[in-house]
Amino acid sequence: MNLILLDPGEITATGDVSLTGGRARHLREVLGATPGLTVRVGIIDGAIGTATVSAIDGHTVALRCTFDSAGPRPRVDLLLALPRPKVMRRLWAQLAALGVGRIILTNAERVERNYFDTHVIAPDCYRPLLLEGLQQARDTRLPLVTIHRQFRKLIEDELAGISDATARIVAEPGATLTMRDAVAPRRGERALLAIGPEGGWNEFELGLLETRGFQRVSMGKRTLRSDTACVALLAMVNSELNDESTDGRLTN
Amino acid sequence: MNLILLDPGEITATGDVSLTGGRARHLREVLGATPGLTVRVGIIDGAIGTATVSAIDGHTVALRCTFDSAGPRPRVDLLLALPRPKVMRRLWAQLAALGVGRIILTNAERVERNYFDTHVIAPDCYRPLLLEGLQQARDTRLPLVTIHRQFRKLIEDELAGISDATARIVAEPGATLTMRDAVAPRRGERALLAIGPEGGWNEFELGLLETRGFQRVSMGKRTLRSDTACVALLAMVNSELNDESTDGRLTN
Repeated sequence: MNLILLDPGEITATGDVSLTGGRARHLREVLGATPGLTVRVGIIDGAIGTATVSAIDGHTVALRCTFDSAGPRPRVDLLLALPRPKVMRRLWAQLAALGVGRIILTNAERVERNYFDTHVIAPDCYRPLLLEGLQQARDTRLPLVTIHRQFRKLIEDELAGISDATARIVAEPGATLTMRDAVAPRRGERALLAIGPEGGWNEFELGLLETRGFQRVSMGKRTLRSDTACVALLAMVNSELNDESTDGRLTN
Repeated sequence: MNLILLDPGEITATGDVSLTGGRARHLREVLGATPGLTVRVGIIDGAIGTATVSAIDGHTVALRCTFDSAGPRPRVDLLLALPRPKVMRRLWAQLAALGVGRIILTNAERVERNYFDTHVIAPDCYRPLLLEGLQQARDTRLPLVTIHRQFRKLIEDELAGISDATARIVAEPGATLTMRDAVAPRRGERALLAIGPEGGWNEFELGLLETRGFQRVSMGKRTLRSDTACVALLAMVNSELNDESTDGRLTN
């Protein structure tokens, strides 16, 4: 926990917070908190700041906080064909840590229908995992999660209202375009990355994505598990979107 | 399992193999094998090829194989400060799937000593996980694993004999050099990527790495868990080493 996340409702007008439970235990047992210790705090979906431990009473830790401004919203949204529950469970914290604006989970021909019946896509399962990832990465921006059981309806009717990203990429083993070629011309814009099921999107699904501006981008020759592919491709998209290397094509 | 890996000793001079256990079960139950079915096979650390199911007898599946040439050895080696056992266990298959030539696990000041006493770094634990990753990614090149309890001895005395990589990068939150600036001038060469413990390398460790040619490269502002950082950074190094985009600096 590199940042302690607070719910806006926990903070008084004077910036005081009284913690019990996991965060208080982390302060006492991992950080060895004593009055006067300063720690990093953040408001869920809000500002980052610092807090000074004002008192410790039994299991309760009292903090007084001051906040700066909020960090930027992550520039990448993820459209992901729902993977196996075990893989999805592993992904939540990693996605929040890497930084995504939206997580749009969808059905596809090669997704097993019963994946949608599992607890792993219920908010009381994934919200604590997303918060864990944010606290790891020192971010406050909770990804917005939506779940779609009908791929065609999502792409044709709903996607335009969900993501305004202009750089749209679908990872495809057979593609020849590189990530750089697809993303570099849109550096500084928002991106939407689509990652299919382990068996891949079918041709209808790829075609429909293309009608909505998605470009097919190569994933290399290696077939990766969904969680590995998500982390690898998000890192590459972020690297291209934010590139500040000396040979980057920065256009202001 | 996108490729069935075989031990060289399992294959007769005529290319015949008789499988029982997990691979036979996968052939029967997942692929619904019947005589005549063709599947992808590979020899551990050797060639990739195809096999035709010649007979199924109870739990035994007989294959006749023909092999092509072996794929290239992965271009990246990984020097990793040993993470928590739970994180290391998750990493093995992902590292093999992404493709690394060597996995060099090391101690560091901020690594807990008892991590070295766990089963997760024993070959009978990690070898099946590495094979699982290779079978996922359709590769045959088993990463070479070495474990070093003395960081200084490793870097000063042993590293030169272990990795001949010329592009040497150490990921560091405070660095300003981008991955592209560090790797692009060495495109096509072999790379060695150093990833520290979650608390970071200390200054002595960073200094020692620099004396051996490592350049500090930025990881961005987000603090990632070791497994997320490994996957993200390996993807970025591979992308830079192998870049064939139209604005890439290919120098032949």
